[in-house]
Amino acid sequence: MDYEIFQETYGFPVQELNDLLESKQLRQLREKINELNEADIAEYLEELPEEQRLLVFRMLHKDLASEVFAFLPVEIQEMIINSISDAEVGRIIEDLYVDDAVDMLEELPASVVRRVLKNAKSDTRALINQYLNYPENSAGSIMTAEYLSLKKEWHVSDAFNYIRANGQDSETIYVLYVTDNSRHLDGVVTVKDLLMHSYETTIGDIMEENVFHCVTTDDQEDVVELFNRYDLLSLPVVDQENRLVGIVSVDDAVDVMEDEATEDIEKMAAIIPTEHSYFRTSVYETFKSRIPWLLILMLGSTFTGIIISSFESALAACVALTGFIPMLMDTAGNAGSQASVTVIRAMSLGDVEFKDMFRVIWKELRVAIVCGVTLSAINFVKIWVIDHLLLGQNITLMIDLVVCLTALVVVILAKLMGCILPMFVDKLGLDPAVVASPLITTLIDAVSLLIYFLFAQALLGIA
Amino acid sequence: MDYEIFQETYGFPVQELNDLLESKQLRQLREKINELNEADIAEYLEELPEEQRLLVFRMLHKDLASEVFAFLPVEIQEMIINSISDAEVGRIIEDLYVDDAVDMLEELPASVVRRVLKNAKSDTRALINQYLNYPENSAGSIMTAEYLSLKKEWHVSDAFNYIRANGQDSETIYVLYVTDNSRHLDGVVTVKDLLMHSYETTIGDIMEENVFHCVTTDDQEDVVELFNRYDLLSLPVVDQENRLVGIVSVDDAVDVMEDEATEDIEKMAAIIPTEHSYFRTSVYETFKSRIPWLLILMLGSTFTGIIISSFESALAACVALTGFIPMLMDTAGNAGSQASVTVIRAMSLGDVEFKDMFRVIWKELRVAIVCGVTLSAINFVKIWVIDHLLLGQNITLMIDLVVCLTALVVVILAKLMGCILPMFVDKLGLDPAVVASPLITTLIDAVSLLIYFLFAQALLGIA
Repeated sequence: MDYEIFQETYGFPVQELNDLLESKQLRQLREKINELNEADIAEYLEELPEEQRLLVFRMLHKDLASEVFAFLPVEIQEMIINSISDAEVGRIIEDLYVDDAVDMLEELPASVVRRVLKNAKSDTRALINQYLNYPENSAGSIMTAEYLSLKKEWHVSDAFNYIRANGQDSETIYVLYVTDNSRHLDGVVTVKDLLMHSYETTIGDIMEENVFHCVTTDDQEDVVELFNRYDLLSLPVVDQENRLVGIVSVDDAVDVMEDEATEDIEKMAAIIPTEHSYFRTSVYETFKSRIPWLLILMLGSTFTGIIISSFESALAACVALTGFIPMLMDTAGNAGSQASVTVIRAMSLGDVEFKDMFRVIWKELRVAIVCGVTLSAINFVKIWVIDHLLLGQNITLMIDLVVCLTALVVVILAKLMGCILPMFVDKLGLDPAVVASPLITTLIDAVSLLIYFLFAQALLGIA
Repeated sequence: MDYEIFQETYGFPVQELNDLLESKQLRQLREKINELNEADIAEYLEELPEEQRLLVFRMLHKDLASEVFAFLPVEIQEMIINSISDAEVGRIIEDLYVDDAVDMLEELPASVVRRVLKNAKSDTRALINQYLNYPENSAGSIMTAEYLSLKKEWHVSDAFNYIRANGQDSETIYVLYVTDNSRHLDGVVTVKDLLMHSYETTIGDIMEENVFHCVTTDDQEDVVELFNRYDLLSLPVVDQENRLVGIVSVDDAVDVMEDEATEDIEKMAAIIPTEHSYFRTSVYETFKSRIPWLLILMLGSTFTGIIISSFESALAACVALTGFIPMLMDTAGNAGSQASVTVIRAMSLGDVEFKDMFRVIWKELRVAIVCGVTLSAINFVKIWVIDHLLLGQNITLMIDLVVCLTALVVVILAKLMGCILPMFVDKLGLDPAVVASPLITTLIDAVSLLIYFLFAQALLGIA
């Protein structure tokens, strides 16, 4: 849905705001903008020139300002921090959820980070420092510290009082964790559970003791898989001593999910994933993310070159063979990447594991044979009718046979390589998406050419 | 995370259950299995042979049985329906959320659907029939009818009483919608709002009147984009007369998100998306999803064949040229698919729109020039040092120049085609993922060869 539709449907009044800004009707502008949604305001601020952006940002009510701030890209966050007072910096950093603050600090220059931390309260600062120490892409790095925990011996009424008193700053209040005095995780209750029981009920009696949880060092992909599998609203994160240190909420999990899908797609297209969205990535960064694989794959095709030049005499003896090289390479490459992409996606969704190797091979083999036979048969007729009879190319039935036999064999080989290689790579602890289409294609290219020329030598009697 | 880890971490006792089943200790088995999570039980049932599966399914408590049933694949649902009594069928269908029931019915054979509907109560039947009429992939088809709505004039205490009385069957109770007597959507309150206000407060005073919502016929991708953009927990769905008819909850949105990412990945790999997970798709279905593009792309490479054969004399005059065909085609193809995949993903995440065309072209042009120059320069040296000096291939400096000039031009062309084509295809209302890598690659192959041979003719003086 593009931004125009958002404006239409939800009435974000870009034009009206711009008019008020231009005609300096700042009081009306202030009233108007404070009624709007934080995500929309952030998008609006991004589009404004720098001076106006600061002017409008300062018009926001204190709470709204922090919420909008969390939605802004880090460059604009930096610009704003550099333009506001220490007191304002302190207020914003206290209002941000710790995970949002950490996301920002990880990308800011050291001098700005120092200024931000200097203006945070000491416990906020300690918390932020703790978060900055979690490994990238770990559960610890995506969790939030703003959650509510209850005690086993409380009654439902105590829980409600506690939520009323402390819930305002919590990222989610619908799933509540029960901890003992050393913060060990004892159980979980939902607000739904609380609402469905009388005020006198003891929390310990209604809590669920088997709590899905993860450890700070767990990979974020595993966290997301838990959310998917069990339709969770939030997941508690414990440290190595099983003490509750944070929660991951469903909207953070959704963000990770989209990022992981984007990364997989990029890796499959021979791109090294970047952190930012399309227009926020500079030309140099985009170049850096694309050139390594282009280079590696280009140099990798040295092998296809060697194969071709070592069969130069065969090609000179039968020039018609050259015309089918692109078709054979493309078909094999496509067949292989269909298999690899399917298997890689199935692995990342948890549908396929290494132990399924033989089931996968058996399935891909059957698909490959049917695909290979179909393609070869149609190709055989097409070459004879279109290339030979209609276009008058110098092709014998034997050449046609060599091409179609090659097509059959390489489609089968390509599909098998396409499913086996990613599974082995995954087993080795590497990311299978990286070896997907492009790398496998280069390998398959070389194999296809070799098979092609061997068939040609054997069946056409050329050296 | 694979299943073994789930077992370890959350203690799903596969071995223990199997032992109890084998030694026919059915009472202990019944006790044990009723303590477990519905998603895990469903996965366990899937692995069992048919008779044992039914035996274990019948051991589940009534409520748990319906929950487990919703997690089972449709083939096993059908098997169970065919083996249980009408009364049991009726109970399960009443307990299922309408959206889960509809998902199942859409795939069952007509005779089974008739039996299921016959055993449903008449209002459930009416609701299911209504859902079956929503277009596939629309908001209506993914929404649920189990939600709670409040009235403006109620007090917070009335709302809590209402939730206590009716919340048990509702898919989510944390976001509540306020409707008037004709079911028009007036506003939204969260349980958090209710908890933060006194019991005497009137709902109308605390509700938010600007409610994000969608219409039954909206595309599910737009629904997901709203969830992403505004971090929603649920989204109300209204009909054409703005009457509330259902809600989409965040876990349904997450499922759609994963499905859409999988579909995009499949389309980019020249696969026609299928409905089921890897092992649930039969060999014939997999074949059907892969063969069309393989065929189209194979026939498409007729053009590259024609180009090569029309330059046959040039190739015969300078056989060394043939050796670089795979490298040039692969490099151009990779460069093009990097651009197309990046732009397509950015479009599907809402970062890039048609109106950004010139910004995209300007960015890709600069990236393409830097990539093209780098690749050509390195390639020039590599061909001379490795192919000519080390491998002793018969390559002149002029041939080297032709190859590297071609590489430069085709990388730039490929990146431009890669970004422009998907945007136009999207503008035409078609799915850009379909034209991604493979189709663009075939096009780029033909263009690259043409440019190669034209450079060769011009610079090497061959006809």
